[in-house]
Amino acid sequence: KELEASISLDDPFANDPPRANLGAVRCQKPYNSETVIELIPDNYITPIPMHYKRHHHPVPQANEADFRLVLAFEDANILQVSTEDLRSRFKKHEFPVTLQCAGNRRQELNKVAPVQGLEWDCGAISTAVWGGCLLRDVLEFTGFGDESALIERAGVKHICFEGLDKPYDASIPIDKALSKFGDVLVAYEMNGAPIPREHGGPVRIIVPGHLAARSVKWCERITASKGEGHSGWQRGIAYKGAPAYMRTFDGVDPETLTSVQELPVNSAICLPRPGSTVDVDDGSVTLKGWAWSGGGRNIIRVDVSVDGGKTWQGADLGRGAEQGQNRAWAWTFWEAEVDIPPELRKPGVELDICCRAVDVSMNHQPERPEAVWNLRGIMNNSYHH
Amino acid sequence: KELEASISLDDPFANDPPRANLGAVRCQKPYNSETVIELIPDNYITPIPMHYKRHHHPVPQANEADFRLVLAFEDANILQVSTEDLRSRFKKHEFPVTLQCAGNRRQELNKVAPVQGLEWDCGAISTAVWGGCLLRDVLEFTGFGDESALIERAGVKHICFEGLDKPYDASIPIDKALSKFGDVLVAYEMNGAPIPREHGGPVRIIVPGHLAARSVKWCERITASKGEGHSGWQRGIAYKGAPAYMRTFDGVDPETLTSVQELPVNSAICLPRPGSTVDVDDGSVTLKGWAWSGGGRNIIRVDVSVDGGKTWQGADLGRGAEQGQNRAWAWTFWEAEVDIPPELRKPGVELDICCRAVDVSMNHQPERPEAVWNLRGIMNNSYHH
Ligand SMILES: [Mo]
Ligand SMILES: [Mo]
Repeated sequence: KELEASISLDDPFANDPPRANLGAVRCQKPYNSETVIELIPDNYITPIPMHYKRHHHPVPQANEADFRLVLAFEDANILQVSTEDLRSRFKKHEFPVTLQCAGNRRQELNKVAPVQGLEWDCGAISTAVWGGCLLRDVLEFTGFGDESALIERAGVKHICFEGLDKPYDASIPIDKALSKFGDVLVAYEMNGAPIPREHGGPVRIIVPGHLAARSVKWCERITASKGEGHSGWQRGIAYKGAPAYMRTFDGVDPETLTSVQELPVNSAICLPRPGSTVDVDDGSVTLKGWAWSGGGRNIIRVDVSVDGGKTWQGADLGRGAEQGQNRAWAWTFWEAEVDIPPELRKPGVELDICCRAVDVSMNHQPERPEAVWNLRGIMNNSYHH
Repeated sequence: KELEASISLDDPFANDPPRANLGAVRCQKPYNSETVIELIPDNYITPIPMHYKRHHHPVPQANEADFRLVLAFEDANILQVSTEDLRSRFKKHEFPVTLQCAGNRRQELNKVAPVQGLEWDCGAISTAVWGGCLLRDVLEFTGFGDESALIERAGVKHICFEGLDKPYDASIPIDKALSKFGDVLVAYEMNGAPIPREHGGPVRIIVPGHLAARSVKWCERITASKGEGHSGWQRGIAYKGAPAYMRTFDGVDPETLTSVQELPVNSAICLPRPGSTVDVDDGSVTLKGWAWSGGGRNIIRVDVSVDGGKTWQGADLGRGAEQGQNRAWAWTFWEAEVDIPPELRKPGVELDICCRAVDVSMNHQPERPEAVWNLRGIMNNSYHH
């Protein structure tokens, strides 16, 4: 109602917030932009204007005074809470979480064969300190805390989140929502201040370790449910795991494919940027980048190469390597000083720099984009060149 | 004491249980044998005589009447329980769990460069229905149930298990031990009967989703501890994640490497066996095998190829695909009828059959063994040929 009134008939995006236009803009309406890749290594916590933005619709405007978050069981509303309730009734938790679009690094898949979606480089990823209450505390307050009751008796398997930007919704498996080690937030702060509209304020769900599409912005309804969320972003083809040999979605029932939740191990080189010139007079080059894995799985190693993967050496892990076991919700920075083989120390020689990471469950990145290619162009975690 | 008395001075293995010698025997003393690979597809639950065996020492003999499991906090014993206590005081849980030796498929790494350890083919993996009480219930009974107290106040980070086959011990991170979704068992039954000595009876810890070395056999002591278990199998080089470029362990401090816990996504072809002859008159060949991933991560897809990975098709997932989300503790069977390309339908042509799996966190198997090679020869999850 209020929302509709504020939207110009000429341009549904007229009410979007002002933006600094940092980083590569992949789409103006809806607005989608990367973080500034070369500045990542200097910013473990991404400054808010630099945080990547990924919208599917115009940015809604909530009236915070009237805003209520509804908690529901299937179709029945159980409770509604204000942001003040969230702040005053529940313990506040605050920690860094890396959000990554499932489409991050899609650009590289397009070189194998055309894929659908925005042409993200390796900057659809950022880290903020998210603050709020634990979803499990809120669920317990509503009487949903008895896990066995929910799961075994009521058949609940998913917790669904609906955003103000209808019809957007998404859901997560109930074990992630209820586990003491899941750390899902009903967030109301980002980097120590109220969450800006751009990033989902007043209330955003933060699902650490999952693709960012589950961290529903402007969340106004949380539902305990037998089924997954109903939108195309949950049940449709958008965020499903499709095989490389599926070259069309015609005749494909999306329900036969698995919804993406936790993301696989991934990494990227931020410096030097592709096409840039490096001085190799001293015989070495310094590489810097990020590594991250889904499910809170710590990064245990990053390997780098300057000869396209013929020889490798280990990078030094920096910030993020200190995160708790199986609770590495934020990325791990890495840096390596790599000796350039003598035969490559010539003017005009092109170095094929690449990196690959390993996580604590000993999953490795796959070598070639061909192996992970999929028509939606998501979850590209092949070696980064 | 009793144990030592029963061991012949001539042969410390003289008291080992009698065995059927099914499957390839990789070592007689201590006894190490694979399951029967070609029979896997007919046996979702591995019959006990066919279960792979992996011993580091002679098989100890516990006197069940006197057997006590000690629960301890660091050096202080808190409680001791008999197997009768475990049976009568705690709720019984029973479900199929696949155990896999971290060294499974080591044989293939040896073709890249020599590695240490037993030359396992793809049969150091089996599945049993393990029954017992939940470790978390036992820990709660001892007063260890308050997770925040253990973690935040006492600094406990690991739960350690000591076996009767001293000095064997192993540990797991506390979140796995305490999570409602971790399903760690203090097991006293295997396939519906008391656990045979061979497989760790009277009491074996079962850590679903982790390398089998953490499922400590003949467990006599459980310790809540700040540090990991002390044996070489936990802190030493045996089960650490080492990079491909580490060609010697001389001068390497094992504490600088990460202990393996959850295993990565893996799969193997059980039929046809390498070197066997297939009749391609009808233009197709039937492949069968297993797929499994650590951490309870469900297998969502298996791809197969008969031309060495040039073309792929999806396999049909069979038993195991029905397992609960993020609780796929047992393997998933798969089967595929693959059309043989006309140019390969000739007598004497060698088919390069291979498979690769994807799990629910969208991790893929790496393509080549070179990428995962490590001197200990563990966690080979490259495409299986
Ligand atoms: Mo996304
Ligand atoms: Mo093992």
